[in-house]
Amino acid sequence: MAQKVTPRSEDYSRWYTDVIQMADVADYSPVKGCMVIKPYGYTLWEHVKEGLDRRFKETGHVNAYFPLFIPLSFIQKESEHVEGFSPELAIVTVGGGKELEEPLVVRPTSETIIGHMYAKWIQSYRDLPVLINQWANVVRWEMRTRLFLRTTEFLWQEGHTAHATKEEAEAETMQMLEVYRDFAVNDAAIPVIEGRKSESEKFAGAVNSYAIEAMMGDRKALQAGTSHFLGQNFAKAFDIQYLDETNELQYVWTTSWGVSTRMVGAVVMVHGDDLGLILPPKLAPIQVVIVPIWMNDEQRDDVLAVVEPLENKLGEHVRVELDAREGYSPGWKFNDWEMRGVPLRVEVGPRDLKNDQVVLARRDVAGRERKITVPLGSAVERVVGMLDEIQTGLYNRALDFRESHTYDPKDYDEFREAVAHGFARAWWCGDADCETAIKDETKATIRCIPLEQPSGQGRCIYCSEVAEEMALFAQAY
Amino acid sequence: MAQKVTPRSEDYSRWYTDVIQMADVADYSPVKGCMVIKPYGYTLWEHVKEGLDRRFKETGHVNAYFPLFIPLSFIQKESEHVEGFSPELAIVTVGGGKELEEPLVVRPTSETIIGHMYAKWIQSYRDLPVLINQWANVVRWEMRTRLFLRTTEFLWQEGHTAHATKEEAEAETMQMLEVYRDFAVNDAAIPVIEGRKSESEKFAGAVNSYAIEAMMGDRKALQAGTSHFLGQNFAKAFDIQYLDETNELQYVWTTSWGVSTRMVGAVVMVHGDDLGLILPPKLAPIQVVIVPIWMNDEQRDDVLAVVEPLENKLGEHVRVELDAREGYSPGWKFNDWEMRGVPLRVEVGPRDLKNDQVVLARRDVAGRERKITVPLGSAVERVVGMLDEIQTGLYNRALDFRESHTYDPKDYDEFREAVAHGFARAWWCGDADCETAIKDETKATIRCIPLEQPSGQGRCIYCSEVAEEMALFAQAY
Repeated sequence: MAQKVTPRSEDYSRWYTDVIQMADVADYSPVKGCMVIKPYGYTLWEHVKEGLDRRFKETGHVNAYFPLFIPLSFIQKESEHVEGFSPELAIVTVGGGKELEEPLVVRPTSETIIGHMYAKWIQSYRDLPVLINQWANVVRWEMRTRLFLRTTEFLWQEGHTAHATKEEAEAETMQMLEVYRDFAVNDAAIPVIEGRKSESEKFAGAVNSYAIEAMMGDRKALQAGTSHFLGQNFAKAFDIQYLDETNELQYVWTTSWGVSTRMVGAVVMVHGDDLGLILPPKLAPIQVVIVPIWMNDEQRDDVLAVVEPLENKLGEHVRVELDAREGYSPGWKFNDWEMRGVPLRVEVGPRDLKNDQVVLARRDVAGRERKITVPLGSAVERVVGMLDEIQTGLYNRALDFRESHTYDPKDYDEFREAVAHGFARAWWCGDADCETAIKDETKATIRCIPLEQPSGQGRCIYCSEVAEEMALFAQAY
Repeated sequence: MAQKVTPRSEDYSRWYTDVIQMADVADYSPVKGCMVIKPYGYTLWEHVKEGLDRRFKETGHVNAYFPLFIPLSFIQKESEHVEGFSPELAIVTVGGGKELEEPLVVRPTSETIIGHMYAKWIQSYRDLPVLINQWANVVRWEMRTRLFLRTTEFLWQEGHTAHATKEEAEAETMQMLEVYRDFAVNDAAIPVIEGRKSESEKFAGAVNSYAIEAMMGDRKALQAGTSHFLGQNFAKAFDIQYLDETNELQYVWTTSWGVSTRMVGAVVMVHGDDLGLILPPKLAPIQVVIVPIWMNDEQRDDVLAVVEPLENKLGEHVRVELDAREGYSPGWKFNDWEMRGVPLRVEVGPRDLKNDQVVLARRDVAGRERKITVPLGSAVERVVGMLDEIQTGLYNRALDFRESHTYDPKDYDEFREAVAHGFARAWWCGDADCETAIKDETKATIRCIPLEQPSGQGRCIYCSEVAEEMALFAQAY
């Protein structure tokens, strides 16, 4: 841990992989494109899971589990779906020592197999809505991979719901987008823009795809969650029909929505700095670390006599760790926990004992301001309050950063400049040709057509034709 | 839900699959040998996970995640391991549209890939012990499958630990066996016998395997959890070495241990009856169901005015559901919830309102004794107390059942009779030939050599040679 990460300003991409490896978040595996999520990173993911799972259950969803393997013929039933996913499939051709009659696809997503089951389970309007989520691993064969952001195998949740009416399914799609926004903002401290995907960026098989988009520390965009209104596309492909109240056979309307381990990458990129990770308290595996300071055995005993009860008291409110390791200097420990992004450090040394005080050091603030001294007696209360402050502070800082790098270019020249340095809001005529030309010329894509729109019309930033909607453009991961 | 399950006495195996399907625990999938775990069954599994995960964390373990795919060459590195697992492998040969250079195995278990990573992570005695668990799906190509008990894909947890000394690794192996026993007894209400596996039944690659064995309702045995002492087998195969305190290079000692969705099958078979599931309160998705009874709208309003606040009050202590569905008779609802094994039912009708009382009906007791009337004011307290009683009652009933079907045969004739009807405790000389002969002649296998042994020696039940240990024999799933 004496190592230092590559500075962000020098090479952002190397900074990212350095931090992830040095902070023990994840490691490369011997399998191409697959990673190992180490305990520290997995605990972070467990907190992401808990935050999302709670929200899913509060909105009436239940978890289930569907098979990892999908018959190849299923993938081929929905025409856009097969086109989108075919190039990315991992295929099992041998099982139990024998060549399989029908190859099995390792699920890239589960609309098809779940569609097949829903056709069996749903008979009547009384069976609707079906509100199911699955926590699972999925596989998409990727050529260029990057830890958490794009890996051949990744972990995610995929919600799959079926409804009697179009309106209900659309409302569900938007509700889950809002659940993702709420999680990103309140738990991950990541400001996001909610919007609709353009035709060319939408999910293969969806009528409309929606996403939350976030700005990373290098001012590129990351799609951090998606919610799809699938219309009756999968219902028709898999024959999911129900008898309505007038005894007529109707196709259901379905949705799907997902957030993946990519969210961990977003947390790293939005909050981290050149010292390592900075974790929002709500997701941090360890929220507070106590580092005792001593020069000799007597001091050691005196300090431990204070910090051990303090650890217990803090433990009733927060996730705390006491770092009483021998053979490491306090300075080494400070660096170690800073690398791991622990939001708050409590330092207690012999001088603090004398003064009946402790020092609190915030991970999210640089320089002298990061440290304050508080009476031992109010340490618990101050720690809890400061964690709230850090959570809010991280969000506000990320929001400021995004806002100061989001532009409203007046013409295409300004636009090119804007997307080279951040996000650009611009009118778009809706024509895929303009979208493609912009991408070819600037590498920027339409991240989304934000739900929040100005009134009136404008002129397309590329072709100057009349445009009804503004789009958010950016280079993206 | 007007359907009835096949009686256990008529066809136990059909009873089992009937109950699982009619109680919405799981369903067959279109993929051979794979099942779908439905929301009700998955919630049960979530409670199993929580009960185990809490115990793992209390004993110092952390979760991580390793890749689904394992290079085929890894499986071949440990000679016993490859022999044991080769016939069961699912193999990916195509990825991203291309034939792979090295085929990838879909993990049947993860000792090999984790061994590879541990070799990279472990350098010094300071890095030990490594105490990691993984919640994951695994695939073993099975010819004859059965819901939950033997499926091609299943969910499980696999713990993988590495230690500096043999003694520590052995202690870990036994500690996790004890964790499994504690979970089975206290959460699943399933009495189990802890013991060592014979050479022929142990895990492929282990020095010693231990298991908890339970008796199902048809008096067959089910292995419900295993803990393996792997010695230095995988350390040597994957070169996992550390520098000890004297700066010498040493191989680590490893363990692995697992419990799977099989545990759900065990819960069904140990507790269920001809009306359906009976779930131990600690694992039940719904612990208490309130069924209001009314004949007309006025009564309906009166009854709901009482049961709705009751649901809220109960909800502070237990997992409760109010079944206020219209269009279903109380009798139909009783059957429906009995099928799903909800431990306790609260009935409230107009007559109960008058008398300021509610009726509690236990799922685990048959006949008139199952119902008692309690004052509305003490309903919450009585419900909580009765759930404890049901939890204990289920365990005791299962223990009685096992004890009354466990025999100590005096000779081989009695032994044959015994294993046709239950468990047999018998001396065994340790010779694999006797074990095989017994299996061929009686279908009974050595489930384990119980940790608890009588003092002294005996004579092998098969060959009459001197025997040092008693073994537990039974027909098994």
